[in-house]
Amino acid sequence: MTQNHSNFKRLTNETAITLAKKLGLVNADASLKCNEIGDGNLNYVFHITDTVTNKGIIIKQAVPYAKVLGESWPLTLKRAAIEANALIHFRSYCPEFVPQVYYSDEQLAITVMEDLSHLKIVRTGLIDGDSYPLLSQHIGEYVAKTAFYTSDYHLEPSAKKEVARHFTNPELCKITEVFIFTDPFFEELPGDFEVELTDAAKNIWNDQEVILEVAKLKQSFETEQEALLHGDLHTGSIFASETETKVIDPEFAFYGPVGFDLGQYTANLLFQAITRNGAGKEEIFSHLHEFWNAFEETYTELWEAQNKSPFRHVKGYLPYLLTKFKKDAFGFAGCELIRRTIGLSHVADLNVIEDKVSRIAAKTSTLEIGTFLIKKREELDVPALIEALKQRTLPSYSTI
Amino acid sequence: MTQNHSNFKRLTNETAITLAKKLGLVNADASLKCNEIGDGNLNYVFHITDTVTNKGIIIKQAVPYAKVLGESWPLTLKRAAIEANALIHFRSYCPEFVPQVYYSDEQLAITVMEDLSHLKIVRTGLIDGDSYPLLSQHIGEYVAKTAFYTSDYHLEPSAKKEVARHFTNPELCKITEVFIFTDPFFEELPGDFEVELTDAAKNIWNDQEVILEVAKLKQSFETEQEALLHGDLHTGSIFASETETKVIDPEFAFYGPVGFDLGQYTANLLFQAITRNGAGKEEIFSHLHEFWNAFEETYTELWEAQNKSPFRHVKGYLPYLLTKFKKDAFGFAGCELIRRTIGLSHVADLNVIEDKVSRIAAKTSTLEIGTFLIKKREELDVPALIEALKQRTLPSYSTI
Repeated sequence: MTQNHSNFKRLTNETAITLAKKLGLVNADASLKCNEIGDGNLNYVFHITDTVTNKGIIIKQAVPYAKVLGESWPLTLKRAAIEANALIHFRSYCPEFVPQVYYSDEQLAITVMEDLSHLKIVRTGLIDGDSYPLLSQHIGEYVAKTAFYTSDYHLEPSAKKEVARHFTNPELCKITEVFIFTDPFFEELPGDFEVELTDAAKNIWNDQEVILEVAKLKQSFETEQEALLHGDLHTGSIFASETETKVIDPEFAFYGPVGFDLGQYTANLLFQAITRNGAGKEEIFSHLHEFWNAFEETYTELWEAQNKSPFRHVKGYLPYLLTKFKKDAFGFAGCELIRRTIGLSHVADLNVIEDKVSRIAAKTSTLEIGTFLIKKREELDVPALIEALKQRTLPSYSTI
Repeated sequence: MTQNHSNFKRLTNETAITLAKKLGLVNADASLKCNEIGDGNLNYVFHITDTVTNKGIIIKQAVPYAKVLGESWPLTLKRAAIEANALIHFRSYCPEFVPQVYYSDEQLAITVMEDLSHLKIVRTGLIDGDSYPLLSQHIGEYVAKTAFYTSDYHLEPSAKKEVARHFTNPELCKITEVFIFTDPFFEELPGDFEVELTDAAKNIWNDQEVILEVAKLKQSFETEQEALLHGDLHTGSIFASETETKVIDPEFAFYGPVGFDLGQYTANLLFQAITRNGAGKEEIFSHLHEFWNAFEETYTELWEAQNKSPFRHVKGYLPYLLTKFKKDAFGFAGCELIRRTIGLSHVADLNVIEDKVSRIAAKTSTLEIGTFLIKKREELDVPALIEALKQRTLPSYSTI
């Protein structure tokens, strides 16, 4: 896909404010401040606030390369339009969990949206020990609703194909295909880990059973168009408080296997389950239960109330699908655990552990749980997964 | 998808000749004759021949509704462009088995292509008892090549997604979804069969195991984008002689599960296996062996020589895929057998049997084999399928 960037112009704090005024989203004579607060890899994020009323908006702008990898990994600006359109789709199905989009401009790769600065990024919150009593219930409902409403069970299959065509997202999918499903599983491909993890990494590279299962999971990611996915549903893509949850950043949105969103969220809870002890660990186990229960209950309710397919009442069909989603999810979660440990993109949950022995122990455990999930995904369920986590007693340390 | 048909104009014999001359595909002062020879449901087919040299061309024009169903089933004219583009794609991978496209016009829904009138439609040939010693070897190679070269194992996954987007084909897929995967499996939905088949049909409708498996197969058809399929690979879509084989009519082309093309061809051989006896039946068994062997051998050769994925050498990966293709194919074949017997669109293979007792016996057998394929597809292989066919001894009759 060739793309003309000639109309692209990077925003500055000043032009961001000018745009906000032009759109009538802030008062023309208000006293405004603007900060670029992007900490992601692919975008600039301008936070504009009225210094008197304290009300704000967010202007997000994609840039034509991945910041973290330098300009050497060019990325279509079309992802800004994909993100804006995905937010609009997802919000139509669950407005309670998705920020509002006020405006988008495909040429400038800009999305103007609801200010969520009263909330905190969940990854940071969990590392800080904050409590999110409703988070996993909310995310379970969010995944169930987006997965059901964008599937062939709610949309007419013909309509679904048009939506899927619209959300073809080859460049962002490629990032996942390379960094989650390929590089971490081959010794000769790029990776990044402490030298102490070499043996554990080699155990994975040499385990043909793991590599075969990853091949199958990659094939599933590349071929199965079950629903419109968020595509990057880790705890860094969620803003929350004790009562409120908002899922942001769906620039990786595409039609894929439902288990991928389920698996990403599960894996990112597992980083916390692995690094915590005592009551903190139990709290994450509760999150896992709440997430999966909410997902399955909400999906089942939607299936029974809103599925128009003549096959909806066939005995065993819904259980077959729920089992498939879970099996896929556990496999995808395993890949995420491994790639965040020995691949190029790490997570703070593990890296904030300052004590090296503890950090290596946590990462070794992450690799083991990842391998376990990939190999045993067919027969595992949430209680069995939690049991396996309990049996892996880590040296006592706390990240909080 | 709304569509403007204002530029559409139906060809007549005269305007077809004018077009052929304008394109320089026939001599301007040649003596030409033109016959409309379309016997399909969705198109007009003009055969233009130079009465002196006897050389010809084919001009195919789609009409904006399905002929067989009247104007009540409107169909996008875009299918003509999909067909022309699919022919061009497939020919680039196996020119020996695909006719050449000389010209196409999306507005007029016209494809001008190679004249294949020296060959015979295989369904007719098989019913007539003609011998096609190379046919199944050729079709096995054809499916292997189109399936491999359009997959993520040959194309870059990003490039594949763009091709898949291009071949989004919701309206033609819907025909398959309704007439193959839905209507034949529910008593209350439209069907067409002799009253003597009522009990056999009820056995299927009441068999929850069959219906559940069909639900899974339909889900696979709707979601799995493994390769660019022909999408309608029955024996009426193949022209052949003893030495030559050409696959035509890919207007149903879309990215789907490889097993669908494999299954359609298998099922359409099975109609002959069921209706024949003695040496004629054995000949079809040979076709089944040759088809599956050629497919698996060619696919394996391509995998080993041309697959660039780092996963290509992983032990068990290729066998896993080949097993999946076969399992899917047998299930899809079962659906095709059933829908051609109790669904709206029948096949001559069965309907040419004039003796009613024999015809009902053949159709009952077709329904049984279809059910068997759907239920047992996980463990079945070609020899076991042939064994099952042998055990179902039909009353002696011949369609030849």
